Amino acid sequence: MIEAQHLVSTLALEEKAQLVSGGGLWVTAEIPQAGVRPAVLTDGPHGVRLTRDGVDTGHITNSFPATSFPTAAALGSSWNEDLLREVGAALGAECRALGVDVLLGPGVNIKRSPLCGRNFEYFAEDPLLSGALGAAWVGGVQSRGVGASVKHFAVNNQETDRMRVSADVDERTLREIYLPAFEHVVRQAHVATVMCSYNRINGVRSSQNRWLLTTVLREEWGFEGYVVSDWGAVHDPVAALQAGLDLEMPSSRGRSAAEIVGAVRAGALDERCLDLAVERQLATHQRLWLARGDGMETPDLPAHHVLARRAAAEGAVLLKNHDDLFPLDPATGGRIAIVGEFARSPRYQGAGSSKVNPTRLDDALTAILAATSREVTFAPGFRLDGTADPALLAEAVQAAHDAETVVMFLGLPEQTESEGFDRTDLDLPALQVELLEAITSVNARVAVILSNGGVVLTDPVTSRAATLLEMWLSGQAGGSAAADLIFGHAAPAGRLAETIPHRLHDIPTYVNWPGAEGHVNYGERLYVGYRWYDRTEEDIAFPFGFGLTYTTFAYSDLTVHLPDPARPEARVEVVVTNTGRREAAEVVQLYISDPVADVDRPVRELRGFRKVRVAPGHSERVVIELDARAFSYWSTRREQWVVEPGEYGIHVGSSSRDLPMTQTINLDVAAPTPPLTEESTLAEWYDHPGGRHIVRELLGETMGARDGRFENLGTWQFVAQMPLTALLKMSPSSGTERAPLSDLLHAANNGDAAQPAANV
Amino acid sequence: MIEAQHLVSTLALEEKAQLVSGGGLWVTAEIPQAGVRPAVLTDGPHGVRLTRDGVDTGHITNSFPATSFPTAAALGSSWNEDLLREVGAALGAECRALGVDVLLGPGVNIKRSPLCGRNFEYFAEDPLLSGALGAAWVGGVQSRGVGASVKHFAVNNQETDRMRVSADVDERTLREIYLPAFEHVVRQAHVATVMCSYNRINGVRSSQNRWLLTTVLREEWGFEGYVVSDWGAVHDPVAALQAGLDLEMPSSRGRSAAEIVGAVRAGALDERCLDLAVERQLATHQRLWLARGDGMETPDLPAHHVLARRAAAEGAVLLKNHDDLFPLDPATGGRIAIVGEFARSPRYQGAGSSKVNPTRLDDALTAILAATSREVTFAPGFRLDGTADPALLAEAVQAAHDAETVVMFLGLPEQTESEGFDRTDLDLPALQVELLEAITSVNARVAVILSNGGVVLTDPVTSRAATLLEMWLSGQAGGSAAADLIFGHAAPAGRLAETIPHRLHDIPTYVNWPGAEGHVNYGERLYVGYRWYDRTEEDIAFPFGFGLTYTTFAYSDLTVHLPDPARPEARVEVVVTNTGRREAAEVVQLYISDPVADVDRPVRELRGFRKVRVAPGHSERVVIELDARAFSYWSTRREQWVVEPGEYGIHVGSSSRDLPMTQTINLDVAAPTPPLTEESTLAEWYDHPGGRHIVRELLGETMGARDGRFENLGTWQFVAQMPLTALLKMSPSSGTERAPLSDLLHAANNGDAAQPAANV
Repeated sequence: MIEAQHLVSTLALEEKAQLVSGGGLWVTAEIPQAGVRPAVLTDGPHGVRLTRDGVDTGHITNSFPATSFPTAAALGSSWNEDLLREVGAALGAECRALGVDVLLGPGVNIKRSPLCGRNFEYFAEDPLLSGALGAAWVGGVQSRGVGASVKHFAVNNQETDRMRVSADVDERTLREIYLPAFEHVVRQAHVATVMCSYNRINGVRSSQNRWLLTTVLREEWGFEGYVVSDWGAVHDPVAALQAGLDLEMPSSRGRSAAEIVGAVRAGALDERCLDLAVERQLATHQRLWLARGDGMETPDLPAHHVLARRAAAEGAVLLKNHDDLFPLDPATGGRIAIVGEFARSPRYQGAGSSKVNPTRLDDALTAILAATSREVTFAPGFRLDGTADPALLAEAVQAAHDAETVVMFLGLPEQTESEGFDRTDLDLPALQVELLEAITSVNARVAVILSNGGVVLTDPVTSRAATLLEMWLSGQAGGSAAADLIFGHAAPAGRLAETIPHRLHDIPTYVNWPGAEGHVNYGERLYVGYRWYDRTEEDIAFPFGFGLTYTTFAYSDLTVHLPDPARPEARVEVVVTNTGRREAAEVVQLYISDPVADVDRPVRELRGFRKVRVAPGHSERVVIELDARAFSYWSTRREQWVVEPGEYGIHVGSSSRDLPMTQTINLDVAAPTPPLTEESTLAEWYDHPGGRHIVRELLGETMGARDGRFENLGTWQFVAQMPLTALLKMSPSSGTERAPLSDLLHAANNGDAAQPAANV
Repeated sequence: MIEAQHLVSTLALEEKAQLVSGGGLWVTAEIPQAGVRPAVLTDGPHGVRLTRDGVDTGHITNSFPATSFPTAAALGSSWNEDLLREVGAALGAECRALGVDVLLGPGVNIKRSPLCGRNFEYFAEDPLLSGALGAAWVGGVQSRGVGASVKHFAVNNQETDRMRVSADVDERTLREIYLPAFEHVVRQAHVATVMCSYNRINGVRSSQNRWLLTTVLREEWGFEGYVVSDWGAVHDPVAALQAGLDLEMPSSRGRSAAEIVGAVRAGALDERCLDLAVERQLATHQRLWLARGDGMETPDLPAHHVLARRAAAEGAVLLKNHDDLFPLDPATGGRIAIVGEFARSPRYQGAGSSKVNPTRLDDALTAILAATSREVTFAPGFRLDGTADPALLAEAVQAAHDAETVVMFLGLPEQTESEGFDRTDLDLPALQVELLEAITSVNARVAVILSNGGVVLTDPVTSRAATLLEMWLSGQAGGSAAADLIFGHAAPAGRLAETIPHRLHDIPTYVNWPGAEGHVNYGERLYVGYRWYDRTEEDIAFPFGFGLTYTTFAYSDLTVHLPDPARPEARVEVVVTNTGRREAAEVVQLYISDPVADVDRPVRELRGFRKVRVAPGHSERVVIELDARAFSYWSTRREQWVVEPGEYGIHVGSSSRDLPMTQTINLDVAAPTPPLTEESTLAEWYDHPGGRHIVRELLGETMGARDGRFENLGTWQFVAQMPLTALLKMSPSSGTERAPLSDLLHAANNGDAAQPAANV
C-alpha cells in the first residue's frame, strides 16, 4: 500500500473528500493533476450491465450487449464451484473489454424467505453453500484483474422497505447464518470490495455500522479492500467514513465532499480516517490494474454463450421424473406438443439492477425444433399478461390431446418478481395451473419445465405432471439448455439450494415477514430454510439439496479420519457409484449434527459438499475436509466460536433428508470451564471442578441436602437453577456466619481446593 | 396518603432503610417506637400457605391448614369472573383468620409455552382472559381487606434459568401480550401490590427496571400500591429502589438496609426515593387495615370446600363425549370399573410455593362410591413412580373387561411439573397410554379423566377413549367434583384457556425455548397460543375456547351497536339458546379481526366473553361492550395505541375456531397522517395530502413518470419504496437545481399547497 499511501499524502483535503464521494453514477472521482484515474463500477452479477452513456434509463437496450448468464438462483443450484469460477472469469473478461474495473456482485445474502423479490440474485438458504459459490465466482472475476463487490453487506434479505428497515437479529444468528458467506468470500477469495446494504441492522444503518464495517469485516476477517455503499445508501457521509465506509456511490455532486471537508475543518472528523478510506480505494484499484496488465482483452462471446448453456443445465433441478419420461428420444417416437408462451418468449433473467442486454437469446422452441426429428407442435396456452384466453387454452388442450408427449413451459411472469418489491405468494399463476389441469386430463405424458427466480409451490405441478424440471431464470442460453436436457444431451445437474415447502404458512418467517413500522424481527433465529423444517419436523415438498438426474447413485465406504480427537479437524471420505446407465453429476453433501450441546443447535448443518461427474458403473472417492468451524457454534456469552467436546454425527448423502451414510465421532477437545460468578446457579457450582466441594461443605444438611448432596430429584430440580446467592438469601438456616461469597468465588475459580470454605 | 407521609417524616434513615428491606422470611420490618406494625405476606394463589413458625421447610404439613382451591389452570378454564371473585373472597377470609395481610397472587403470566413447569399457576395463553380473571380474583381477596400481589411482573414465562434469563421481546409484543393482564388488574382491581419477577427483560432485571416499575406501572397505569420483589429477586437494593421497587423480600438481615443507608449518605441515592417507597408501603398497609375493620373473621371452611368443589366443575373441560357416554346414570346400568391410581391418590395441586396443606382431601373413588348405587370396581392400573407393574396392568384390564363402563383417571405424576423447572415433553406417561390401549381393546365404553397442570397431548387419548374430561389440578374437592360430573350432578363448564396442539413441534415457541446463554428470544412475537395456530393455519387437537358439555347451544341475532363510527366503542348483543335437555353454562366469546392494517395483526383476538347459565329450551341475550382498546394495536413508531379507520370483523361463538356469528363494522376514526420525513418513501409522499402535488411537480417526466405519475406498474413497484432522497440522488437528470429537501418537507407537512415546489 506504500504507493497509495504516498499518493494520499500529495492530495488536498478537497481532493480526498471528492475521492470518497464518487465521481458520477458509475465512476469514481478522478484527480488528473495527481494522476488519480477514475474507476468504473457497474452492475452485475449475471452479466455486465454497462450503460452506454453513463445514464441509467432502466432500459436494457441502453446498456452494451453482454452475456446474460444464468441467475444466481440457477448458479446456486449448480453446487459447482468450478462452474462459478468459469462464469466469473468470463464476466471478468467482458468487464475488461468494456473498461469496467469493478463488477458489482456476487449477492450472497441468505434466502431467508422465499418471498424475497430479489432471491433470483442470491444463491441459497445456506451460508456455507452461498459462501463457497460466491468465493468461486469472485475468484473467477478477479482472475482477470477486475474487482468484485460482494453484496449486500449485510442482512439485506427483503425488498420491502429495504432502504430503511431494521433487521433485528441476535448476534449468534448473524454469526452463524447471515455473515459467514461474506466472511468466506473475504477470507478465501480476497474480494476487492464489499458493498454495504441499504438496511439497518439492530437499528444501525449498514453504511454507518462500525461494528460491521470495521470490527468484524476488517479487524476480525482481515478485509483489505474497500467498502462501497449501495447506490444511495449513505445518509451521513461523515458517520459513514467513521464507521469504515470508503466510497459513497453515486456521486452526490459535491454535497458529501463539502460535508466531509467541513467536518475535518471543524475537528469533527479525523483526517486520518479520510486518508485511510482514500488509501484503501486507491490501493485496491492499483492492485487490480497491476494484476490486469496492459493488454486489451477481446472476450470470446460465442464461447461465453456455450458456457451459459452449460451453466443452465448445471443448475437445472429435476424434481420428478415418473417412469423416466425425460429424456425424450430425439429421433423416434410420436408427436411432441410444446405448450406455454415461455417456450417462445423465454423468462431468463430478473428485473432490476442485474438486467443486462444479452448478446443473443435462445428460445426453447427453436432449440427443440433444431434438436429433434420428431413431429413438434406448439401452442402458447396462456398470455404473459395474465389475462385469460379460452381460445389459447382450447388450442393447447387439443395439441396435447393429439400428441404422444407434452412438454409445458410454465413459470412466473416478469412482473411478479423483481428487485425493489417482494412477492406476496408462492403460487404459479392460476391460469397456468388451470392449463396444466386441462392438459393432464387429456394426456398422461406431461413434463413441466419451470422458469422462475424465486421458489414456487410445486405440489400443483407434481400432483398432475409426470416430470418436473425446475430451470429457474437460466440466462440467454436457457432455451438451448432446455432442449439439451429434454433430449438427454445433458443431464440435469442441479440440486435445490432452498427448500420447497408445501404451503406458504409453513415457511420459517411466516409470522415475521416483512415487518412493520421500520423493523423486521428475525425471530426464527438460526432456523432458516432446512434448519427450520428439520427442527419443526415439518413435512415439505422437496428438501434442500434434493435433485434427480438421468441416472442413480449409491453411497458406500464412509470413513472419517480424525487424527487427533483433541483437535476438531477431520477428513471424510466416501465412495459414490453411478448405478444407472448415463453419465451424470452427483452432489455429495456432508452435514454435521451435535445432538447434545449447551445451546440449541440445528438438527443438521451443511458443512461440506463436492460435485462429481461419474460415468455409468464407475465410482468416485470423494474427500471432504472439516475444520474447527464445521463443529462450532457462536457463543454470545463468550464472544467466540466454541467447539464442545462430545459426540458429533457425520452424515453424508444426496440431500438434507437423504443421508444414508452416518458415522459418529467423539471430540475430546478441551472444554474450558467458565468461571463461577455471583450469578452462578447451584447446578453450575456442582458442575465446577473448583466449586463442587465448596458448595457441598457450605450446604451440608440444609435445604434438603444430605452431606451437601441432593438425593431427592424434585428438590434438586427446584434448587438446581437457583443462583447460589438467591438460595442463601432465601434460607434462614444457613450461612449467616459464612464467608463472603466473593471469598468462595475466589477459592472456587482459583482451584483453591485445599482451603476450607469458611466455617461451614 | 397524608398519614403515611407524615409517618415517614418521623422515621430515621436507618428505619426507612429497614422498612424497604423486609423484616424476615414472610414479614415486613416493624418499627415499634414509631408505631409501624409488621405486615405478613404469604404465598398463594390457590390457598393460603402460612408457615407455622415462619420457617419454610418446604413440607406442607409445616403450614396451617387452608382450603386448596383448584389451581389457576382449572380456574382459568372456568372463564367465570364471578367464580374467581368468590374464590378470592374465600381466600381473603382465610387470610384474615390467619393474620395474613397480603396474599401473593394471582399469577397472570401468559402461558407462552405449554412446557412451562409453572403453567398450573397461570390462567391462560390470552391476556384478556388472564387479566379479567386476575382482576376478579383480586377484587375478591381485597374485598376482605387483604391485599393481593399480582405476579410475576413481568414476562416470567418459563422456569428454566428463571432467575437470570433475559426475555428478549419487542415492545409491541410486551404491550399487546405480556403486559395487558397486569395493566387490567392494576387499573380495574386496584391491586394493592405488584410482585416483580426474577428474570430480565431485554437485559434489564425486572427488580431494577425503571421503565417497567415506574414509567409503565405508575406513570401510565396509575398504580398506587407498592412493588414487592419476588423472594430473592433483588441484587442491587439501591438500583431497585431507584427503579421503583418498594420492598425487598425476604429480609437480607440488614445487608440491603446498610447498603441503602450508605448510598444515601454518599449522595448516590436521593433520600426522597427511599421516602417514597416507605410511604407507598405504609400507605398501602394502612388502607388494607382500614378497609378490614376490627372484627376477627372465622372462615366457613366447609362452605369453602363446597366452593372448591363447584369451582372444579366450573373449570373441567369436556373435550370429547362420543355417544354421550357421560353423564352416567347413577342408579341403573352395569358395573363401572374405576381405573387409575389417581382415583385413589388425587393429583390436585402443583408443587412449589403454591402448595398448601388442605383442610380435607376428597378422592374420586370415595366420592363415586358414595354417588352411585351401581356396582363399582377399582383397579389402580399403574404406579405413580412410573415403574411398570404387569400385575396392576392385568388386573385393570380384567376389571375393564368385566365392566359395562370404564372411567380412567390418568394424568401427570407430581414429579413431572413444578415451579422451578420446565417440562421437556407434553406426553402422558407411556405406561398410562399403554394401559389405555389395553383397556380400550377390551371395552369400548371408556371415559378418561385427566389430572395435570400443564397441557398434555390428547390425541393418544381421543383416538381411543369415547370420552375425555380434562380436570387439570382441581384442588382438594376435585374428587367430589369428578363424581358430580360423571353422574351429571354438575355439567362440565370449562373451556380451554390454552390451545392443545397435535405435536410438540407445532408450538409457537418450538425453536425459541427455553433459550441459551442467558437469553430467550420471543421470536414468535404476538403470535402466542391461538394467535400462532390461526396465523400459520396449523391443524390442532383442540382450539382455545373449546369445551363441550351435557347440552348444546345455538347462536342467533348478533347485533352490533356502533353509536358513532368516529368513536371506536360498540355494544355487541347476541342470543344464545340451550338446544339440549340439560341446564349448563356456555361461554360466549367475542373475537375481533382487522383484515387490513398498517401492521401485521393476529387473525382474530379475544376481545370479550361472558359466561351464562341457560336452562334447556331457554335463551339468554348476552351483551359485551367494546372500547377503543378492543380495536387497537400498539404502534412502536408512535409509542401509543392506535385504532385505524376501516373494516373490523366482530366474530361471536363458542371457541376461537367456532364463530358462527360475524358482522363487519366500519370505523371512521381519524387517521392522523404521520409527517413526511427525510426517510419518507415515494409511496408515502404520494399518500400524503400535502406531499402529493409537490412530488408530482418535482418528478415531472423523470424516472419513468409522466406528469409526475407512474403508469407502469413495474416501475412504480420498483420506486415506491425508495426514500425520495435516495431516488433523487440516484437520478442525474432531475432536481439538480431543486429547492433543498427541508423546504419541500416543510411545505408538505404544513399543507402549504399553494406554494410552488421550487423550480421544477
